[in-house]
Amino acid sequence: MSLPDERFHPYATGLAAETVAKHQDPQDLVFYAGWFCPFVQRSWITLEERGIPYQYKEVNPYKKEKHFLAINPKGLVPAVEYKGVALYESLVLNELFEDAFPNYTPSLLPADPIARAQGRIAIDHLSKTFLPAFFRLLQSQEVEKQEAAKNDAYEALRTFAKQIRGPYFFGEQFSLVDAAIAPWVVRDYIVIEHRRFKREEVSDAWKEYAEVIEKRDSVLKTSSDKEHYTEIYGRYLRDEAQSEAAKATRAGRVIP
Amino acid sequence: MSLPDERFHPYATGLAAETVAKHQDPQDLVFYAGWFCPFVQRSWITLEERGIPYQYKEVNPYKKEKHFLAINPKGLVPAVEYKGVALYESLVLNELFEDAFPNYTPSLLPADPIARAQGRIAIDHLSKTFLPAFFRLLQSQEVEKQEAAKNDAYEALRTFAKQIRGPYFFGEQFSLVDAAIAPWVVRDYIVIEHRRFKREEVSDAWKEYAEVIEKRDSVLKTSSDKEHYTEIYGRYLRDEAQSEAAKATRAGRVIP
Repeated sequence: MSLPDERFHPYATGLAAETVAKHQDPQDLVFYAGWFCPFVQRSWITLEERGIPYQYKEVNPYKKEKHFLAINPKGLVPAVEYKGVALYESLVLNELFEDAFPNYTPSLLPADPIARAQGRIAIDHLSKTFLPAFFRLLQSQEVEKQEAAKNDAYEALRTFAKQIRGPYFFGEQFSLVDAAIAPWVVRDYIVIEHRRFKREEVSDAWKEYAEVIEKRDSVLKTSSDKEHYTEIYGRYLRDEAQSEAAKATRAGRVIP
Repeated sequence: MSLPDERFHPYATGLAAETVAKHQDPQDLVFYAGWFCPFVQRSWITLEERGIPYQYKEVNPYKKEKHFLAINPKGLVPAVEYKGVALYESLVLNELFEDAFPNYTPSLLPADPIARAQGRIAIDHLSKTFLPAFFRLLQSQEVEKQEAAKNDAYEALRTFAKQIRGPYFFGEQFSLVDAAIAPWVVRDYIVIEHRRFKREEVSDAWKEYAEVIEKRDSVLKTSSDKEHYTEIYGRYLRDEAQSEAAKATRAGRVIP
């Protein structure tokens, strides 16, 4: 018997479909992805930004297929197979792409150790504050809880936005910090339409940044048509989604 | 009026006090610490392992003193001041120490990009699974909830232990992975005494590893006398602690 979440649109569409089509040849790096997943998009953007050769393989993480569980026992995307080794976690993969492919430019981490640390602190801040608030905002059914989650999301983004040098986090150079938040910028229309979220209520700096991020080539090239995201996020909005992130949010646990 | 948590023993004791005494001279790197805090110990172990010069400054994070909030607006230890810049988050600091002090050997990250990624995945796994379970185990008052938390902690450590090459995570070389978990090995006697936790019920591999870790010089040198931890953890065991980690655990939120 298939779970409802297994039955969504199975492939990338729009510009993302064109990117998938260009990355079908075998490569040393196999990228296991779900076209709809924001965590996947973090690493996909990074691969595209740095021009690293990769083979794209679509996985349905809801199905927990055996061949994929052998690669990532957590059953989560993104995951990669590189030199015969399976690795996962979007943020770890982005650091791996820096370490393993130093000759692919540009690097998405500044050379200055202090700036690197500031970038990692910003990513950690988003992961611990904004992301859980975003999922609570999506999944909460009572208006009061939605408003509380929305305020948490605003507060988290406001703190982040204060550090943006502009147009990108570190200034002119796109970085791993921008890659880490971009997928949620792309998806914010869902909470704008259904949860009264407003970019300008975060801050002017955030609104300006979000408008730059959503137009970035690597972000566009890894984004599918909106109608198919809408289908998936409908399940979150009704709090019926069965993704690991959705289940963790429902149970008040850490997003895995 | 002072909160009860402000009034615990104010300084490191035992071997940790000796280490503090050796690190009072001004240095480029100022390390803001709370002697009792496991997150602090992660970074403190790393500084000691690598022989990086640092000035130790004791902070009471419960007090949220103004001079410290200017350094870390989250008010959390560990934090550092380096070249006039304030930085925090134990795991980010450990990566900073690698990036900013490449000439202090040994490096605590392997050179191989795949191994580095495996280490970071293991740390991420512990942060997302073991740590929240450990705090739930401490703070839960009902036996049923304690048992559930204990099983979650066992399961998380079991998965981790399967990857240990021995004696340390990566084999002969102590690494950032070992530094990231060591503070909870040092503190497990609390859950052994009060929550029926048993190392051998995790796995033989874990028990063996824990016995190696707790004897490591850098771990001993950053550990205070047990009686003073006991005083602090008594508040956790009665679920009265007011640390950010304790409050987050109580609210079912991510540990900040």
